[in-house]
Amino acid sequence: MATTELTKTDAVTVRRKKERADYQRASANAILDEALVAHVGITVDGQPFVIPMAFGRDDDRLILHGSNGSRLLKALAQGGPVCVTVTLLDAIVFARSQFHTSMNYRSVVIVGNARPITDLEEKRVAMERLDEHVIPGRAAEARPSTDAELKQIIAIEVPIDTASVKARTEGVLDDAEDLDLDIWAGIVPVTTHFGTPIAEPDLKEGVPLAVSASPYRRP
Amino acid sequence: MATTELTKTDAVTVRRKKERADYQRASANAILDEALVAHVGITVDGQPFVIPMAFGRDDDRLILHGSNGSRLLKALAQGGPVCVTVTLLDAIVFARSQFHTSMNYRSVVIVGNARPITDLEEKRVAMERLDEHVIPGRAAEARPSTDAELKQIIAIEVPIDTASVKARTEGVLDDAEDLDLDIWAGIVPVTTHFGTPIAEPDLKEGVPLAVSASPYRRP
Repeated sequence: MATTELTKTDAVTVRRKKERADYQRASANAILDEALVAHVGITVDGQPFVIPMAFGRDDDRLILHGSNGSRLLKALAQGGPVCVTVTLLDAIVFARSQFHTSMNYRSVVIVGNARPITDLEEKRVAMERLDEHVIPGRAAEARPSTDAELKQIIAIEVPIDTASVKARTEGVLDDAEDLDLDIWAGIVPVTTHFGTPIAEPDLKEGVPLAVSASPYRRP
Repeated sequence: MATTELTKTDAVTVRRKKERADYQRASANAILDEALVAHVGITVDGQPFVIPMAFGRDDDRLILHGSNGSRLLKALAQGGPVCVTVTLLDAIVFARSQFHTSMNYRSVVIVGNARPITDLEEKRVAMERLDEHVIPGRAAEARPSTDAELKQIIAIEVPIDTASVKARTEGVLDDAEDLDLDIWAGIVPVTTHFGTPIAEPDLKEGVPLAVSASPYRRP
């Protein structure tokens, strides 16, 4: 069973603005469960690459996938060091000074090594968890993947273990001598909005809107 | 003057779903100008790190900054290889099959080498461009940065040159034999919503809402 604390190695220790960091699994999970896109970093021949990917969280592992023809997935599957970062933007911070202009955000940085999920049944479970992360409730609605489909993809898992959480959740942090300036200061909240579902033009007549889309929501 | 085409090296050439890729500067600029967060990848002792950062676009360069105490900014300023990725999420794609569950997005991947901006006047211009990227119109409202403030930060630029754009902008791509299933298929649009500005509790009495926040909007 996973511990409540993440592993705080030198690599993930936040040094700047330490008061904005924490190493609690629950903090990381809350951010991961709300987010839809992970930015996955790997190094190939000394060059870092950062690729946006869908992901899933299944307990204490992160699941990623891609085509079995993908260079990056193949590289990931070899188990070299990886960094997965997930960020949610919460607000634009309007300070009175340009210097203190800022943004509120919550982010998780996970470092580790990916493990390929090669067993077909393990892969089936992992992909269901990933699909459920992207669309909660969808696994019960959509056609399950066939063996042939599962064989077309590379699925990998990254342990959510060596990781840190960093967040800015404050208002404006202007210098004391700027507070009396005639300049507006405050925040503009930023949220992700999920709009009205749009059915495919070729949707079979009479098929009702999916429960998972009415409305679509994050956990 | 920048060319209209990005430089398509082996590193940035999209191999999977090539039809979703392009190498036009205008495509990259449109994504960069709409986005607020960049995921910046560097490699330190073989370990990739991906860090979310505010950024600015100034013509054909990307501007990043951070505290002059930041390990990552110091590493970036040394000019080693960097990858900057910017992603916008546009829709959740509900396929009839779990296998074709997907997301619509637009992303830019830039590889290159960062250059530190050390000259104080160059840094002042770069930081104004960055602040203007985060809050269009704010440079004319907020107190400009002092020399002492500029000296507290490291500013770097990354050329927007070797880069690729990848986007999924389609509807559902189900297999022909699935079209007749009694399963809803379609998309849920995803947009970023900028909410009602919230003034700081210590805002000087009588100061009106900033023009840049009424309403806040991206270019």
